[in-house]
Amino acid sequence: MTIILYDLCGKNGKRFSPFGWRTRMALAHKGLEHHVELVKFTEKSKVEFSGQKLVPVLKDEDNVVSDSFAIAEYLEDAYPDRPSLFGSSEGRGMAKAINNFVDMTIMVHMGNMIVADVSGHVDPACLDYFTSSREARFGKPLPEVQVGRDDRVVAFRKTLEPIRRVVQDQPFIGGDRPTYADFPLFGVLQWARCTSTFAILEPNDPIRHWFERLLEDYDGVGKSEPAAV
Amino acid sequence: MTIILYDLCGKNGKRFSPFGWRTRMALAHKGLEHHVELVKFTEKSKVEFSGQKLVPVLKDEDNVVSDSFAIAEYLEDAYPDRPSLFGSSEGRGMAKAINNFVDMTIMVHMGNMIVADVSGHVDPACLDYFTSSREARFGKPLPEVQVGRDDRVVAFRKTLEPIRRVVQDQPFIGGDRPTYADFPLFGVLQWARCTSTFAILEPNDPIRHWFERLLEDYDGVGKSEPAAV
Repeated sequence: MTIILYDLCGKNGKRFSPFGWRTRMALAHKGLEHHVELVKFTEKSKVEFSGQKLVPVLKDEDNVVSDSFAIAEYLEDAYPDRPSLFGSSEGRGMAKAINNFVDMTIMVHMGNMIVADVSGHVDPACLDYFTSSREARFGKPLPEVQVGRDDRVVAFRKTLEPIRRVVQDQPFIGGDRPTYADFPLFGVLQWARCTSTFAILEPNDPIRHWFERLLEDYDGVGKSEPAAV
Repeated sequence: MTIILYDLCGKNGKRFSPFGWRTRMALAHKGLEHHVELVKFTEKSKVEFSGQKLVPVLKDEDNVVSDSFAIAEYLEDAYPDRPSLFGSSEGRGMAKAINNFVDMTIMVHMGNMIVADVSGHVDPACLDYFTSSREARFGKPLPEVQVGRDDRVVAFRKTLEPIRRVVQDQPFIGGDRPTYADFPLFGVLQWARCTSTFAILEPNDPIRHWFERLLEDYDGVGKSEPAAV
């Protein structure tokens, strides 16, 4: 029995996908051994068997699941004896709402601060694809996309306030231990940490302390991926 | 033993406070009888004993709690044998994060769509105070604040997407039954329902169906406050 995680990778196998990190943390939380299949930006055909072309994809025997939140729900249901990702059935829907808020109100503001930095970590064989697809999305050359980020990061930090006001008073969103509710924002910040040296967070931000706790947790799986230098 | 809820009221005792509704739903969820003290906009001295001047305030014997989320936490701890507001300890922090997201990414866009309509439900004795304080906040006469809301409501509806994507698949954010995670957005929509006839939601929006379920729940406490006509 082997769980296989298909996860995005960049240059030299670097894994910085914000969605991939949600799943890696979920697997670590459940304590599930798994095999990793690295998928470069131009190798999406590797996950065609899942009926779509986005990573991460989880394959567990005959079960194939895509979409990081759906993967979390699958793991919770398939491995109920392992530590719960959601704490309760009520927590599952709440974590999903938080997952969606992070995607739609926080993560959308990160791309234009780090996309050129990310390109420096993309495998050379995928760089043309990455650059042209992202330039089409942002409508300008990638270095220009990042212009003004010193100003925009101030607004970005404000988008973290709903979570900051929780983790300034307790270690994790769900209390004393991490739950899946922590992983969406963790993934966003890990994406930045692995690809960019831009200072996303101020030194004394409670969000930084929370992020550092998560980097250390689960035997330091988060920290095992080197920060950009 | 009597719990006293100090709640904002407008003309003829109308209760439309978005924060007051969070607490009313929490009390209904816990099935707790309580006495209500109505507080007009210019009667904030009635809650001075709480050390601050915002409503709602809950007084339960010698315990005085202000801030609607703090009131929910108090009720959860003081009445553990009643139905849980959060489902689990993990759900408490998650509900707090959702509460904060609703305040900071959704509710902030409602005021400029309904504030002039709200003024029509303010007690005449408080109307000068309400109008001058809100005009100072928005920087223009209240009817002008609402100009353009037909366009802005489209963007507002998009802010609901993180919650819409949960309640389109299940009855409430926490699953089959309401939890406190539902009440912050319920309060925002109830504020609009009680004060304005402006169509905030489209007829087939899953958020509307969710809101209507909540209006009916707890013996229809939400529906007991008449909609604006």
